[in-house]
Amino acid sequence: MPTLTAGAPRAVKAPSGTHTMRALIKHHAGTELQLVADRPVPACGPRDVLVKVAKVGICGTDRHIWEWDAWAASRIPVGIVTGHEFVGTIEKIGSAVTKHAPGLRVSAEGHTTQWKDYNSRTGNAHIALDTKIIGIDRDGCFAEYVCVPEENVWPVHASIPDKVAAVLDPLGNAVHTVMAANVSAKSVLVTGTGIIGLMAVTVAKAAGASRIFATDIDPKRRALAKKLGASEAFDPRDDRWIAEIRKACRGEGADVLLEMSGAEPALTQGLSALRNGGTAALLGLFKGPIRLDMNDLVIFKGCTVLGINGRKMFETWFQMEELLLSGRLELDDIITHEFPIEQFKKAHETMISGEGIKVVMAL
Amino acid sequence: MPTLTAGAPRAVKAPSGTHTMRALIKHHAGTELQLVADRPVPACGPRDVLVKVAKVGICGTDRHIWEWDAWAASRIPVGIVTGHEFVGTIEKIGSAVTKHAPGLRVSAEGHTTQWKDYNSRTGNAHIALDTKIIGIDRDGCFAEYVCVPEENVWPVHASIPDKVAAVLDPLGNAVHTVMAANVSAKSVLVTGTGIIGLMAVTVAKAAGASRIFATDIDPKRRALAKKLGASEAFDPRDDRWIAEIRKACRGEGADVLLEMSGAEPALTQGLSALRNGGTAALLGLFKGPIRLDMNDLVIFKGCTVLGINGRKMFETWFQMEELLLSGRLELDDIITHEFPIEQFKKAHETMISGEGIKVVMAL
Amino acid sequence: MPTLTAGAPRAVKAPSGTHTMRALIKHHAGTELQLVADRPVPACGPRDVLVKVAKVGICGTDRHIWEWDAWAASRIPVGIVTGHEFVGTIEKIGSAVTKHAPGLRVSAEGHTTQWKDYNSRTGNAHIALDTKIIGIDRDGCFAEYVCVPEENVWPVHASIPDKVAAVLDPLGNAVHTVMAANVSAKSVLVTGTGIIGLMAVTVAKAAGASRIFATDIDPKRRALAKKLGASEAFDPRDDRWIAEIRKACRGEGADVLLEMSGAEPALTQGLSALRNGGTAALLGLFKGPIRLDMNDLVIFKGCTVLGINGRKMFETWFQMEELLLSGRLELDDIITHEFPIEQFKKAHETMISGEGIKVVMAL
Amino acid sequence: MPTLTAGAPRAVKAPSGTHTMRALIKHHAGTELQLVADRPVPACGPRDVLVKVAKVGICGTDRHIWEWDAWAASRIPVGIVTGHEFVGTIEKIGSAVTKHAPGLRVSAEGHTTQWKDYNSRTGNAHIALDTKIIGIDRDGCFAEYVCVPEENVWPVHASIPDKVAAVLDPLGNAVHTVMAANVSAKSVLVTGTGIIGLMAVTVAKAAGASRIFATDIDPKRRALAKKLGASEAFDPRDDRWIAEIRKACRGEGADVLLEMSGAEPALTQGLSALRNGGTAALLGLFKGPIRLDMNDLVIFKGCTVLGINGRKMFETWFQMEELLLSGRLELDDIITHEFPIEQFKKAHETMISGEGIKVVMAL
Repeated sequence: MPTLTAGAPRAVKAPSGTHTMRALIKHHAGTELQLVADRPVPACGPRDVLVKVAKVGICGTDRHIWEWDAWAASRIPVGIVTGHEFVGTIEKIGSAVTKHAPGLRVSAEGHTTQWKDYNSRTGNAHIALDTKIIGIDRDGCFAEYVCVPEENVWPVHASIPDKVAAVLDPLGNAVHTVMAANVSAKSVLVTGTGIIGLMAVTVAKAAGASRIFATDIDPKRRALAKKLGASEAFDPRDDRWIAEIRKACRGEGADVLLEMSGAEPALTQGLSALRNGGTAALLGLFKGPIRLDMNDLVIFKGCTVLGINGRKMFETWFQMEELLLSGRLELDDIITHEFPIEQFKKAHETMISGEGIKVVMAL
Repeated sequence: MPTLTAGAPRAVKAPSGTHTMRALIKHHAGTELQLVADRPVPACGPRDVLVKVAKVGICGTDRHIWEWDAWAASRIPVGIVTGHEFVGTIEKIGSAVTKHAPGLRVSAEGHTTQWKDYNSRTGNAHIALDTKIIGIDRDGCFAEYVCVPEENVWPVHASIPDKVAAVLDPLGNAVHTVMAANVSAKSVLVTGTGIIGLMAVTVAKAAGASRIFATDIDPKRRALAKKLGASEAFDPRDDRWIAEIRKACRGEGADVLLEMSGAEPALTQGLSALRNGGTAALLGLFKGPIRLDMNDLVIFKGCTVLGINGRKMFETWFQMEELLLSGRLELDDIITHEFPIEQFKKAHETMISGEGIKVVMAL
Repeated sequence: MPTLTAGAPRAVKAPSGTHTMRALIKHHAGTELQLVADRPVPACGPRDVLVKVAKVGICGTDRHIWEWDAWAASRIPVGIVTGHEFVGTIEKIGSAVTKHAPGLRVSAEGHTTQWKDYNSRTGNAHIALDTKIIGIDRDGCFAEYVCVPEENVWPVHASIPDKVAAVLDPLGNAVHTVMAANVSAKSVLVTGTGIIGLMAVTVAKAAGASRIFATDIDPKRRALAKKLGASEAFDPRDDRWIAEIRKACRGEGADVLLEMSGAEPALTQGLSALRNGGTAALLGLFKGPIRLDMNDLVIFKGCTVLGINGRKMFETWFQMEELLLSGRLELDDIITHEFPIEQFKKAHETMISGEGIKVVMAL
Repeated sequence: MPTLTAGAPRAVKAPSGTHTMRALIKHHAGTELQLVADRPVPACGPRDVLVKVAKVGICGTDRHIWEWDAWAASRIPVGIVTGHEFVGTIEKIGSAVTKHAPGLRVSAEGHTTQWKDYNSRTGNAHIALDTKIIGIDRDGCFAEYVCVPEENVWPVHASIPDKVAAVLDPLGNAVHTVMAANVSAKSVLVTGTGIIGLMAVTVAKAAGASRIFATDIDPKRRALAKKLGASEAFDPRDDRWIAEIRKACRGEGADVLLEMSGAEPALTQGLSALRNGGTAALLGLFKGPIRLDMNDLVIFKGCTVLGINGRKMFETWFQMEELLLSGRLELDDIITHEFPIEQFKKAHETMISGEGIKVVMAL
C-alpha cells in the first residue's frame, strides 16, 4: 500500500511484525478503490470474532462508495476497508466469546449495535438507534479478514454454497420486505426489479405469493422477473398496467405492494394498484422527500404502509435459511458473475454497467 | 317546504295521503339548511328498517355541507336530508328483514355497502369499494325518520344514554384509530385535538395507553386534552416538544402516533417524535397531496403507517360498547351542547364557531 | 320414492303440480341413503337462491350419515337431503336477493347464520353461535337443486373446473388450517394424512411452507403425502420420527403443527416435535376428551394452540381462490373418483373403503 | 456456615482473604433455609455484573424450595443461594461488560441463556432451549451480592420504589400473560387470584381491559380482586357463574381467559365461559397431565390457547415499566409485608400461611 491521502488516518501501514492482509480500501476522497497487500489484520476485541473471508458480494452501496457520490463523501471515512456482504470461516475468537468457535463457516449481519435500546432488546435490533454498519462506519469485508461482534455471526447451513452465502445480506433485504408484508396466498406487486427487486420476486414466490406482478423500465429485467416467477411484468411508463392488475385481482387491486425502486411515481402507481386494505412494504430509498396523495392512496383505502430497513436480527436470517432449504429460491440468474478480488475493478464495473446483476468476488 | 331550486329532484312535496315528517334539508346550492315539515317519510325496501329518530349529532362533514364548500358542492345532491349520526327506535321493518324487530333502540353505521367485494366479505366493509354514506349520498337522519339497511343497525346497550348513543359514529372514528394502533401499555401521541382527537385521548386512556401526549394550537383544547388524560399537551408551533417527548420516552420517542389534525407539519413532527418501529395511525384528512420525507421518517425508522377510514363493521362498534361499559370514557366535556332541532341554526353555529365541541340535536 | 319410515316427516311426496327432482335422502333411521325421483324442488325464501347442482363431493361427515353412527342418529333428521359440498348454477333468486343473479356458476359455504352475533359481525361467521349446516340441519345438495341464503354463495372463478369446485368446502378446511398457522417460510408437520391432511400438504406447500413433514399409519397415504410435497412422511407408531424432525429443524423442532388426525397420541407427539414458541392448529376432532401434558407441551414451550372450525367466511374462500389461481395446488391425486349420482352406493363405498380419497358425484 | 450435607459441593466456606457475605442457603436436603454470614461473594465472569442487593421478593417457587417438595428435591442443588426476585445496585462489572456501569440501580431477568437458539435470537429468549434460572440452577439473590450476565440486567426507572422493583419478576409474569392475550377494550376472566392472579387483575385494568371477572375459592382473595378492579368475583365451586359471565357478555362469553390457578376444573370452566373465538392465556401450572374436551372447548369454538412462560426478554419489561409509569397499577394491597432478611423464617411463613400475599425482604 504505497501512499495514502492525508485525510486517511485509518489506513495505516502495518507495523513490522504485524500480520498483514490483502484488502480493498477507499484510498482517497474520490472514485474507485485500491487493493493493498499490507493492511494489518484487524485486532479482535474480547467479544469479537475474526473471520477469514472466502467470498464477498458487491452491494449497491458499494457502487456509491466506488463512484464517491455526495452520500459516500459525507459518510465514508477515507482509508476504510469497504464491503459488508461475505462468507468465510472463523479464524480466531476474542477472550470473552462464548457462542462460536474457530472453524465455523459463517456469514454475518453487517449492522452492529450495543443491544441497549428498546428495539435491540425486543427482537428489532435492525432499527436500533446506535446502528453502525461494517464497510461503512468501520472496516468491512473486502479483505482477507474481517472482525465482527460475535452477536452478529450467522452460522451458514452446510447446504448453502459460498456463492449464495456471500450475498445473504441483500437477499435478507428481500426476505425482510416480503415476510413483513405477509404474502402467503396473496397477489403481490413488485415495483422495481433491480437486484433486490428480482430477489423479492423469487422470494415472494417461494414464500407462497399466489401471483406476482412486476414493473421495471428495463425490458431485460422484466424478462428476468417473469422467468423468476412473475406472471406479468409491465413497463411503468404506460400506466394502463394499473387497470390490468386491478382486472386480474377481482377489479380491486393487488393484495400487497413491495416498493423496491425508490422512484416516487412507482409508489403512487403502486398504491393505486393496491386494493383497499392492502399492505405496502417500502424498501427502496427515494431521492429526497416525496409528494404523496395520502388521503386517496392510504387513508381512504385503509392501507398499511411498512418502512423496511435492513434485516431483522435474526428472524429474517432464520426465514432466509428456511427459504433456501426449501429449494425454491432461484438465484442462479441473479448472481451472474464471480471474479477473483484482484479483478475488483472489472467486478465493480460489471455491476455498475448493469451487465451483471449480483457480482461476487473471491478472496 | 315552500320552494326548491330547480336542481333538487329528491326533495319532493309529499303526495296527499302520504305520511310526512320534519326534516332538515339542503334546500339549495348554497349555505345553511332548511327545516321543512312536509317531507315524505321514507319508504323502506324489503331489507331496510325505518327508525324514528330521537337524537342526532352534528359532524364536521355537516359543517362542510352547511357552509357549502367546494367538496360539498361536488358531492352533495341538493334536496337531500342531511345528517348521519343518530339514535332512535325501530318503527317498521321491511318484508325480508330477519335480524331486528320494531321497538329496538338503535344507532346505525352510516356507511352502506352491497357486501359483495373482498373487504365487505372479510370483516372490513368500512373500506368496501361501493360504500355510500347516509346524509351524503342518500337521505340522512336530520329528520323524524331515517331508513337504513338492516345490516347497518346497531342495537344500543341500555346503559348508554341517548346523548352518547347519538354520537357513536364519530366516537367510532376515534375508537377505530386507537384500536388499530394497539395502544395497550404504550406511550401515545395525539396530534390535533379537535372533536375526534379529544375523543381519542379519552379512548386511548380507557384502552390502556400508559401515557398520552397531545398537540394543538388552541390552548383551550390543550387544557381539555389534559383534563381527559393527556400527561402533557404541547403547542406544536414551538417544536421543542419533540425533544421533550423523546426524553420522556427513554430518549427514543413515543410508541404510537394518532394523527387527527390533517395538518402536514403535524404528520412530519409526529413521525419525528415516534420511536423507531413505532406505529402511526392516520385519520385526519390533509388538504391535498403532502410532502413527506419517507426515507427518514418511515423507511429508516422501520415504522408502520395505517390509513384509517370510518369504523370497522362491526368490530369497532363492539369495542366501543366495551369501552363505554368500562365506565372509563369521559364524554361529558366533549358533548357540550344539546338543542331541539328547531334551533338547528344555533346548533350548527355553536359547533362551527368552536364555542361547542360536539353538538347534539333532539327531534 | 316408495315408502318412508314413519319417523321421516320432512321427506314428503310432492303435491301434484309441484316441480320434483332427483335427490339422495336419509330415508330411514339406519344405514345407507335412498335415491328418489319425486322430491319437491325446494321453495326459496326472499333472501335465498336456488342452485341447479352440477357436481357434489362426499364428505367424511356423509360417511357418518351413511353408516348411521351414534353422532348421525343424534343429529340428522330422517328424511333430509344430505350433502353439503357442491358446484352448480343459480337457477332462481328470491324476491329480496340483491347480490347475485341467475346464471352465475357458484359453490356455497354450507354453514348458515343469521349474522347477528359478535363473530358473524366481525369476519368470523364460521364460529357464529347459531350456525346451521346444509345437508345436516336442513336439506343439502345431493339433489338436482339446493337452496342456500344468498350470503352463502361463492361465485366460482372460470378457471376452476367443476370437479375441484365441487370440493371447495373440504379444501377450505385445509386452507383455513394452513392459513391460520401462517406457514410462510416455516417448517410444517402434518399429523394425519386423510383427505384434508393430504389437501393440507399441497396447500401448505403452495402457501409457502419451506419444508413439510407428515405422519400417517397408512403407507399409501405417506407415499402420496411425499408426492404432494412432504419431504418426509413417517409412521407415527415408531416415535423416533420426533427426534428426526428436531434434528432437521436446528435441534429445536418444527415451526408449525397441523393436527388433522383427531388421534390423541398424534397431538402429544406433534406438540413434542414442535419447537418452543411454535404454533399448533387443530382441525381433527378427537373421539372424546383427551389427556394432555399441558405444562410440558404448551405452557413451558410457550406454544400457541389454535382451534380450527369450518372455513372463515369468506377470507378462507378468497385465499383458496388465490391458491387455485397460483396453479400450485395438486388435487388430481386427491380427487380420485367421479360417479353419476345413480351410482351413489358405489361412490360412498369407494370413499368409505379407502379405495378412493375424494369422491365426486355428478347430477 | 457450620456444616453442610455431603451432597452440597457448591456451598463452600470462603477461603481466607476472600470477601464474604450474608446469604440464605438451602443448607440441607430438607425443609427451610439457613442464613450464613460467610458465603464468598460470587466471582464475576468477564460478561457478568455483580449487584449489591437491596430488596428481594419471595416467590411461590421459593415456597417449594422452603418446603423441599418432590420438585425441589429433584431440581435444587443443596448448598445453593436461593431467590430470584431482587433490586439492587451494580457494584462491579466484568472485564468485557459494555452495556452497564457500576452505580446503576437495577433488577434483572432471572432466566439466563446463551442467546444462541432460534427463540433467543428472535426476541423470545424466555423460551430458549438452554434456559437456567438464578436461585434454582445457580446462586440466587437472597444474599448481599448476586452475579448476573449483563444481558439480564434491567435498569430500574427512578420513579419505581425498591419495594416494587424487588418484585418485577412476578409482576412480569402477570404482564406477560395479560399482554399476550391483548386485553384492550375486552372483557377478561381471571381464574385464580393468587399473587400473580391478583397482579393480573390490576395489570389487565391498567392495560385497558373493559371489564374483569375473577374466580377464587378464597373469599378474601375475591374481595381483593374486586378492590383491584374486578367487576365480579365468583366462587368457582358454584358453577352458575359461567352463565352469569355469558349473560354479562352479550350471551356469548368473555373475550379473554387468563388461567392463573393451575386447577384443571378452572381451565374447563374458564374455556366454557369464553366466547367463541376467544383467547385463553395459560400461566398456572397443573399438577400433571390434564383431561380436556378439546373438541367442544377449543376446536369448535375456534379459540386460541397461549402457553405463557416467564417474561419476554425484554418486551415484557418495557411494557411493565410503561404500566408502572401510567400510575394505574395498584400494588400496595398485593405487596403486604416487608422484613429484614434476618427474619427470613417469619417472612417465608407469612407468605406460606397466606397471611401475606407478596412478601419482601431487605438485605
